[in-house]
Amino acid sequence: MKITVLGAGAWGTAFGQVLADAGNEVTMWAIEPEIVEGIRDHHCNQVRLPFIEHLPDAMTATGDRAEAVRDARIVVVAIAAQFARVALKEFKGLIGDDAIVVSLMKGIESGTNKRMDEVVRETLELPAERFAAISGPNLSKEIALRQPSATVVGCANLDNAKKVAAACTTDYFKPFVTTDVIGLEMCGSLKNVVALAVGMARGAGYGENTAAMIETRGLAELTALGKAAGADPKTFAGLAGVGDLVATCGSPLSRNYTFGANLGKGLSVEEATRVSNGVAEGVPTTDAVVALGDHLGVPTPLAYAMSRVLREGISCAAMLEQLFSAEITEE
Amino acid sequence: MKITVLGAGAWGTAFGQVLADAGNEVTMWAIEPEIVEGIRDHHCNQVRLPFIEHLPDAMTATGDRAEAVRDARIVVVAIAAQFARVALKEFKGLIGDDAIVVSLMKGIESGTNKRMDEVVRETLELPAERFAAISGPNLSKEIALRQPSATVVGCANLDNAKKVAAACTTDYFKPFVTTDVIGLEMCGSLKNVVALAVGMARGAGYGENTAAMIETRGLAELTALGKAAGADPKTFAGLAGVGDLVATCGSPLSRNYTFGANLGKGLSVEEATRVSNGVAEGVPTTDAVVALGDHLGVPTPLAYAMSRVLREGISCAAMLEQLFSAEITEE
Repeated sequence: MKITVLGAGAWGTAFGQVLADAGNEVTMWAIEPEIVEGIRDHHCNQVRLPFIEHLPDAMTATGDRAEAVRDARIVVVAIAAQFARVALKEFKGLIGDDAIVVSLMKGIESGTNKRMDEVVRETLELPAERFAAISGPNLSKEIALRQPSATVVGCANLDNAKKVAAACTTDYFKPFVTTDVIGLEMCGSLKNVVALAVGMARGAGYGENTAAMIETRGLAELTALGKAAGADPKTFAGLAGVGDLVATCGSPLSRNYTFGANLGKGLSVEEATRVSNGVAEGVPTTDAVVALGDHLGVPTPLAYAMSRVLREGISCAAMLEQLFSAEITEE
Repeated sequence: MKITVLGAGAWGTAFGQVLADAGNEVTMWAIEPEIVEGIRDHHCNQVRLPFIEHLPDAMTATGDRAEAVRDARIVVVAIAAQFARVALKEFKGLIGDDAIVVSLMKGIESGTNKRMDEVVRETLELPAERFAAISGPNLSKEIALRQPSATVVGCANLDNAKKVAAACTTDYFKPFVTTDVIGLEMCGSLKNVVALAVGMARGAGYGENTAAMIETRGLAELTALGKAAGADPKTFAGLAGVGDLVATCGSPLSRNYTFGANLGKGLSVEEATRVSNGVAEGVPTTDAVVALGDHLGVPTPLAYAMSRVLREGISCAAMLEQLFSAEITEE
């Protein structure tokens, strides 16, 4: 089956390899000519996955939008969250009427505060049953190295979720299915706020106890928000929730973790942005979470404390103090 | 208030320091004369917490059982789980009739498959409202260094849980309270099976994705077991559940993690036991979990896979394959 992946970043390319390993013909679309050429002619993506010497023969690439998605039964979108709307507009009318569109993206659109499922479906005028999201503990580098990983495929139509899952099942990549698209989207984007906070505690020199305390508090906050937004709390206890949170907060490979660690070491937001070569996704997401909490009437103490870190530059100790007040309460 | 801690291991001593920092007069009881002398005369525990140069002045020690617990309002038990019954028998009749007994122990008694709350209450003939358990992401080394940590105090009588929590609240140690003693006990002991499995995956060279997948699966298994045993599922989503799991699986300081890592590197159970200077608590707990699952009619795929590792020596890859079968299912 022909499957197209839009965007050849690290995750898009690693997922393209999974799809090829699962027996599909995979076409990568990228805007950068050197990436297209590298994948098409040399079976490598020197820019984003330099340590993979030979991508599968069943992977090719093109810079031509119409050619990329022609006859694709599944179109996977792996574009940076804040550019998704602009980039996808160009594909409107080109994608087949029965193709399933799968989002690998994690984030909340700045300005609109919309989830990626909303952005993709609005832009492509896609019915819910033809949209799927994938979210889980999936650090792209480890998947590119074919280490055992599991994920969750969500679609309002469970049969379509299973179709997508079947298309990406390999001996090292194990997808589960759900109909809780909202839960998956919220887990994937909101966990970045927790990763910022955990990174900050690590950067300040604290160990596992402090990190675990923040992760637990963060998970409770995400779960409460998700429940209020109509998501299934079970999603937050699963691979896309706890699982992704643990993987992201445990890995110095994560951009949000690293950004937070620099804050914890005493760098200002401006300095951390400079060092990280750009702002981390968790920074705009922090404000989006506070706004969502206000809107839904759900307290978001962790996101609020992190927003004070980002806006007022309060220290890690002050952030923790705000989070864990002195009164003795039930958890 | 006088508080006595029975057992001056790393966790007992670190918790004694928390109690002293919170303003109590703390008496440590230990069987080893050199530890008693070290704490009483030199304010240090060279054997178990060598990196702490000066324990608080409000901490003293004795090897005399009656003297140790006389007038103590709270008696904290921090003895290795498998020795708890034998050691506590000697204290029967010595502890005051209104003292609250607090267990820091984590484990399942071999032979009886009993939880520590059962062992302590049976041995001391203690009513439920005078027994409390403490469990959470509390690596003793980090608490000894006064890093920010949170925990959960559980007692059937919430007022007594709050009394114990108040007695150990400091600016770096934050206890929450619950009445779910069974949940706390199960989290504390059962998570060691997961730590073994995660350690094994790490030892075999796998990264964050694989670890997160095992932790998520393990958490689901513990939660299902807990629910069937009458515990509150919320406890498993909190500090004592997710929190402690994350801290234990993230830390090479954990004995179970290290034991598992040695298995993952290809050592046999005998070799790993030799290298680790004794068997890890998670090893007997694995069989206890399988037995509990059979008894309650709850599937325990992770504990079962780990029991095959421990009994038959199956590899990490085989363990993972058994855990994540090929069929596409809901999570």
